[in-house]
Amino acid sequence: MNTNANSPARRGRPGNDRRDVILVAVSLFNQHGYEATSVGMIADRLGVSKSAIYHHVSSKEELLSAALDRALSALEATLDTIDHSAERDHVANLERIIRATVDVLVEEIEPVTLLLRLRGNTELERAALGRRREFDRAVAGLVRDADDAGALRADLEPRAATRLIFGMINSITEWYHPNGPLNADSLGDLVVGLVFGGLLPRAVK
Amino acid sequence: MNTNANSPARRGRPGNDRRDVILVAVSLFNQHGYEATSVGMIADRLGVSKSAIYHHVSSKEELLSAALDRALSALEATLDTIDHSAERDHVANLERIIRATVDVLVEEIEPVTLLLRLRGNTELERAALGRRREFDRAVAGLVRDADDAGALRADLEPRAATRLIFGMINSITEWYHPNGPLNADSLGDLVVGLVFGGLLPRAVK
Repeated sequence: MNTNANSPARRGRPGNDRRDVILVAVSLFNQHGYEATSVGMIADRLGVSKSAIYHHVSSKEELLSAALDRALSALEATLDTIDHSAERDHVANLERIIRATVDVLVEEIEPVTLLLRLRGNTELERAALGRRREFDRAVAGLVRDADDAGALRADLEPRAATRLIFGMINSITEWYHPNGPLNADSLGDLVVGLVFGGLLPRAVK
Repeated sequence: MNTNANSPARRGRPGNDRRDVILVAVSLFNQHGYEATSVGMIADRLGVSKSAIYHHVSSKEELLSAALDRALSALEATLDTIDHSAERDHVANLERIIRATVDVLVEEIEPVTLLLRLRGNTELERAALGRRREFDRAVAGLVRDADDAGALRADLEPRAATRLIFGMINSITEWYHPNGPLNADSLGDLVVGLVFGGLLPRAVK
């Protein structure tokens, strides 16, 4: 994908790089809803004509598909951080996936927000939700592995705990401001601290 | 509110109690979106005429308003569980608000889901979001009080931690099945366990 501002494609049509079109579309989809967003609104926001948009994509649906693929590919790539060796440290694997997921939510906050709000109204949305479920299953498998290895508290039901933890992480898209006081690393520290140790100090006895 | 299936109001107009109308409307709003849901669809689901619906409410907007009020009133009532006395136990207060909120999310899952998905597109929605922010502020105050009293881990930023914890709790509306294996009390135990102690066993040294 061509992201260089001085690239030939960009030079000829300012603000009309395929990647820019997708990012503007995602932002409008999140603001107004997919149905209520028109290609004309996307063109207006970019300051170009509708035909300039159709130079890059054939339909509004192609923009939705590209945006969801962007979110899903970034989430799926977090699984590459996992150590699958026999002597793996299960808690370190959980920490890696949590930090990598927080990074994706911060860096790709608009595409991930779009993904998390999908209801599965069309074939395209259902396919994206299916890919999301595969990712969720892989992450749940990491929690289960850690639980099976005895690395987690024995009194917590691991499946519902996984849902709660990733509900916590996904909520970042609802309240986090990328230009606020908390950067992605500090947010990752906070999430790992809460998920592993909770709010209360460890009792000193 | 009249909830008895054998009540006079219910006997005369089966399935057309005001409360039933609101609950069916909420369910359809969550399924199809508020805009895409018509009063005709609500009447069809209840097996009554549109005029039977208008016997109870004057507009679709009144149904939205009643549904949001139902969610907000239930959430606001959780604050009644809080001890404000000088000798209060801050951690016990947090546990009370967490358990009471989990109960509301389970018992009023459809109205709360509707509330949590609001984007503030209309005056009515913005008013509901304002009430929700007041509630969130009251809860954040409980976490801050506990933090000020030294009852929480010193290394966690309390404002972002509050967002994460209530992001975790609110996620219940996205995945919890009221007829599944986990009842509200067990879910409350799990949430309190995770929020206070995290996933990892306390080190025994």
